Amino acid sequence: MSSHATRLRLKLPAICCLLQLVTIILFAVFVRYDQETSARLWHEELTRHNKSNRDNEFYFRYPSFQDVHTMIFIGFGFLMTFLKRYGFGSVAFNFLIAAFAIQWSTLIQGFFHSFHNGKIHIGIESMINADFCSGAVLISFGAVLGKTSPVQLLLMALFEVTLFGINEYILLSLIGAKDAGGSMTIHTFGAYFGLMVSRVLYRPQLDKSKQREGSVYHSDLFAMIGTIYLWLFWPSFNSAITAHGDDQLRTVMNTYFSLAASTLATFAISALVNEEGKLDMVHIQNAALAGGVVVGTSAEMMLTPFGAMIAGCLAGLVSTLGFRFLTPILDSRLKIQDTCGVHNLHGMPGVLGALLGALVAGLATQDVYGDGMADVFPLIADGSRTATYQGACQFFALLITLGVAVVGGSLVGAGLKIKALGAPPDTQCFEDQLYWEVPEDHHDGYLPAANPEDPERSASI
Amino acid sequence: MSSHATRLRLKLPAICCLLQLVTIILFAVFVRYDQETSARLWHEELTRHNKSNRDNEFYFRYPSFQDVHTMIFIGFGFLMTFLKRYGFGSVAFNFLIAAFAIQWSTLIQGFFHSFHNGKIHIGIESMINADFCSGAVLISFGAVLGKTSPVQLLLMALFEVTLFGINEYILLSLIGAKDAGGSMTIHTFGAYFGLMVSRVLYRPQLDKSKQREGSVYHSDLFAMIGTIYLWLFWPSFNSAITAHGDDQLRTVMNTYFSLAASTLATFAISALVNEEGKLDMVHIQNAALAGGVVVGTSAEMMLTPFGAMIAGCLAGLVSTLGFRFLTPILDSRLKIQDTCGVHNLHGMPGVLGALLGALVAGLATQDVYGDGMADVFPLIADGSRTATYQGACQFFALLITLGVAVVGGSLVGAGLKIKALGAPPDTQCFEDQLYWEVPEDHHDGYLPAANPEDPERSASI
Amino acid sequence: MSSHATRLRLKLPAICCLLQLVTIILFAVFVRYDQETSARLWHEELTRHNKSNRDNEFYFRYPSFQDVHTMIFIGFGFLMTFLKRYGFGSVAFNFLIAAFAIQWSTLIQGFFHSFHNGKIHIGIESMINADFCSGAVLISFGAVLGKTSPVQLLLMALFEVTLFGINEYILLSLIGAKDAGGSMTIHTFGAYFGLMVSRVLYRPQLDKSKQREGSVYHSDLFAMIGTIYLWLFWPSFNSAITAHGDDQLRTVMNTYFSLAASTLATFAISALVNEEGKLDMVHIQNAALAGGVVVGTSAEMMLTPFGAMIAGCLAGLVSTLGFRFLTPILDSRLKIQDTCGVHNLHGMPGVLGALLGALVAGLATQDVYGDGMADVFPLIADGSRTATYQGACQFFALLITLGVAVVGGSLVGAGLKIKALGAPPDTQCFEDQLYWEVPEDHHDGYLPAANPEDPERSASI
Repeated sequence: MSSHATRLRLKLPAICCLLQLVTIILFAVFVRYDQETSARLWHEELTRHNKSNRDNEFYFRYPSFQDVHTMIFIGFGFLMTFLKRYGFGSVAFNFLIAAFAIQWSTLIQGFFHSFHNGKIHIGIESMINADFCSGAVLISFGAVLGKTSPVQLLLMALFEVTLFGINEYILLSLIGAKDAGGSMTIHTFGAYFGLMVSRVLYRPQLDKSKQREGSVYHSDLFAMIGTIYLWLFWPSFNSAITAHGDDQLRTVMNTYFSLAASTLATFAISALVNEEGKLDMVHIQNAALAGGVVVGTSAEMMLTPFGAMIAGCLAGLVSTLGFRFLTPILDSRLKIQDTCGVHNLHGMPGVLGALLGALVAGLATQDVYGDGMADVFPLIADGSRTATYQGACQFFALLITLGVAVVGGSLVGAGLKIKALGAPPDTQCFEDQLYWEVPEDHHDGYLPAANPEDPERSASI
Repeated sequence: MSSHATRLRLKLPAICCLLQLVTIILFAVFVRYDQETSARLWHEELTRHNKSNRDNEFYFRYPSFQDVHTMIFIGFGFLMTFLKRYGFGSVAFNFLIAAFAIQWSTLIQGFFHSFHNGKIHIGIESMINADFCSGAVLISFGAVLGKTSPVQLLLMALFEVTLFGINEYILLSLIGAKDAGGSMTIHTFGAYFGLMVSRVLYRPQLDKSKQREGSVYHSDLFAMIGTIYLWLFWPSFNSAITAHGDDQLRTVMNTYFSLAASTLATFAISALVNEEGKLDMVHIQNAALAGGVVVGTSAEMMLTPFGAMIAGCLAGLVSTLGFRFLTPILDSRLKIQDTCGVHNLHGMPGVLGALLGALVAGLATQDVYGDGMADVFPLIADGSRTATYQGACQFFALLITLGVAVVGGSLVGAGLKIKALGAPPDTQCFEDQLYWEVPEDHHDGYLPAANPEDPERSASI
Repeated sequence: MSSHATRLRLKLPAICCLLQLVTIILFAVFVRYDQETSARLWHEELTRHNKSNRDNEFYFRYPSFQDVHTMIFIGFGFLMTFLKRYGFGSVAFNFLIAAFAIQWSTLIQGFFHSFHNGKIHIGIESMINADFCSGAVLISFGAVLGKTSPVQLLLMALFEVTLFGINEYILLSLIGAKDAGGSMTIHTFGAYFGLMVSRVLYRPQLDKSKQREGSVYHSDLFAMIGTIYLWLFWPSFNSAITAHGDDQLRTVMNTYFSLAASTLATFAISALVNEEGKLDMVHIQNAALAGGVVVGTSAEMMLTPFGAMIAGCLAGLVSTLGFRFLTPILDSRLKIQDTCGVHNLHGMPGVLGALLGALVAGLATQDVYGDGMADVFPLIADGSRTATYQGACQFFALLITLGVAVVGGSLVGAGLKIKALGAPPDTQCFEDQLYWEVPEDHHDGYLPAANPEDPERSASI
């Protein structure tokens, strides 16, 4: 079944072992428990500041972390199981690349954000940020789903995590942009990076695998597990690293209402754009989530609940229309084959979210934020910039992100074209049998692959 | 496939847009962040009362909220996917009506409970209560599952949420009844409301869709995802809005033991009532949850762990017997077609739970509750009523609830009979193809519908 | 279909009712709310120590409890649904025996750990510990999956919970060993207990059911739900009952990195040991979790992140190799039929974890732990033992655990051989139809059983 070129018996173990070994060595040299995690340091802190164990950051971040963790591994993993013959690859390659990305991004983000005296100090926030970064990689994975080998995916993760760290550092530390829920750093970056990789890896003959690029009844239900978990925990995602107190609660509430509104908008548009007025599971699985993406930057701000709803409606509208009208054009005109439609769920709503963030930041006033200004916009609160300037910085951050994503994705995509990386042939895309031992049953949605290059095969199984 | 009458191309977008637009306008006019959510107000609170950000209610309610949220969207949604051909409709209409209900109930409950100076102030508790209210709507959805269009469901949600708010206001604010886990306000109300809607929408020819009113092997496993999540998080449901401290912990513990006991009772009775002693997944999926319903009112009281277990056993027993013996009678004698058996899971256990609550409230003594009396029964603690009187109020609250549910359900059901709302014909109930683009595969549990009115169809696919 | 011997119409109700009745009576006599749960006692505590409701242990343990709870009922339950025809039995018997085990272990652990003045006082920690204990029973269940009746499983739970309590008491209270995440008390104990039960119940003719001892495409995806949830919440499992503050956070972080590393190791070895370099879902579903088991004892210690990664790699390696090479040998040479491969996921990684715990304990120094020593190693901190002695005690605890598990499992297995307990015949193992009403469809992975003893059956359905 798998030709020599796609055999991974040595390649996959080699890349896994190499990446894991390098990571362990770098961790041994550079990574240490932070003050909240180390037995000695935390107990010194307790004594010095008369704190209680219950003041540990753990109790204020860990539930959010677990929600984000669930989104990354269940949410993204199952969302992509919609393909009829790529369920194993969807949930398990998602698992593999996220398990690597959280380790690697702990290092990369650590070098940029918590490198002191030659050591990286990590705690609960670094774990959340590592999961965030892996989210960006998984968004890119959605664009190339079914068309790449796990070796390519691990290499993509290696470089994308690195570029993510650089872009995030520029945005948050150099430009002073706010982006707690990652409309820019995660969604826009991950989507356009992945789309560029997919563009560079364009397969003119992908229609040879067209018969597998769809769902079966139960694969659509598996995908809904992913959708609903993403939808449920998106408020935790956007609020996981905002300031304590009102900031976390407000972020949660804005995201909650934005998602609810985008769900209604998605159902409305999905029925409207179908000739028979029937709903399409692809839209429900994806566009209903656009409400979470679109408030990624602004949810911590004083967006107001009805503002969040308007944003959510708009995102659901744009996203559903994107699936219906734009995805085919991206494929035929721009040669971008976007398996999961990440442009519709993460790309456009991410850009919209960045623009919304710039707008809401630009409108911030002392009257509305009171003393809470220092948490949301510290640079406005301390007088070092005006709200208008903050809004301009937000907009500038979007441009930077698009630039880094497009250039980075193109370069990484070019690297992934190397033949030895085990990419599937055009006839074997979206096919688990290439990389997996698949149970030989004809039931439950799985049929042997019709392989044009191997016409006798389908008879023999 | 879908005749003109069931086409939703304009109806569904119209109702979604109208409801969302009205909601946004009402939110813009009336809804504001509360003191814990607003940047300015919370920081004023911090200064005034020398509080810390970590005192924000968010940290004491949000994990419970997320558990409840999961129950509403994953729990109810997947529980209903047991039907072989209605998995899309189950999980996705559940998604749609809950997404609308949480917005609408924020308004309705806000008018009744947090309307001050012309504004509704919302925070983490209002989010929990909105999810609670949508739970009642989803219970009613279970009674009419597969027999209603999404347009009908949205209208049902609109009116049911409103009546829920009124009933809840009468019970909690006027009568002073306690019902933290909603045995009355959520389960009894939702069940009898839905049963009355189903009664009014009675379909004498529903047996034309009988071949679809069952499960396939994997649809039963999808349903178990819903069951287990409901079972796991029911302790969070019952405790989500009880007083802080011992009250939340005690509610959790009582619910935990009640559920465990109802699970054993369900397995026991399920085997006993089957001629061959075989277990029935319908019982396990549903009756094992009755232990959560039955302590909805009393779990915050000093029920004792063994009291909770007795209650759970009783609920599991009654619920399983109901599925085996009562559901067929409801259909044949009372003309109530109860797709998911909500009478067995929510109706009878809800009534039992209300009675149990009245009993336990009536037995409350200062000796047992100590200073904790003020949290559980404030009106007993401040001397304005006796325990016996509180018990009587609890019983009276049950009667009110039954009355509002039965009358309300009948009226709303009558309204839903309007032809233009796109209800499926009797031959097309429990059928996703009517409202959904369904992948055309013969595998994975999905076969084309045998349509008596269109005899050539089944041959042509 | 089910012969007289396997009919459970009276046996299952009888055992369920008996066990539940005895439990309720013992709870009524012995079990009381603890100080954090009782209305009166908690409010006395509030007054006496000037505490706030927000100091209630509930807020510091309940999110962890819910994660553990999810692992027990979703994680273990769905992990075992990989079998093509045993999905109902996997998730629902898991549900049944865990629902009983959490009640029974509350009593057993209560007698050993919180029995004061003739009463057992229970709270949030006892709920976590009860779930932990049921985890050990579910591990044993994995070894005998598909080969035992629910009556046998309930009896196994009854005795295993009791022995678990005794072993745990010896380890934690008498020997003073540390084992917060249960490498010894849960994983090693549960695995070797179950393997011995399976050994005693050895079926020489099990190959008559061989055709059912495998997966179908979608059953492997259901199993991945279990896998991912176990993987996600393992940090909560290991940290659920560690000391507050740095201990919980450090345990979470170590487990997080160990799991990530074991995932990469599992993918690497899975491809390497396959002739075509294809990945095997059995490995991914199980061995990727070994990283959680292997740090069960040591995660609360100052293991360091890179130490956790090395441990995780090793566990993933050993576990995957075990599935590939050791499981067949256990079956053919040692007559141990291990359905889920618990020896690979819990047995060997558990022993490794115990040894790692002994090593890390033996290396503990005041310099590294500072004042945090008292939380992790109270007996070292108060000078009553040296680190080396603590390490020796840890090793000794492993030996005790192996002894109790092997002897206990053998005895309980012998008891379960009683004919009247309804075990399936060799020809009907891994078959839901024996104990369940199964929907009669030929799709969705479920085909009627090929029954060598009843050759006409497969034609008749």
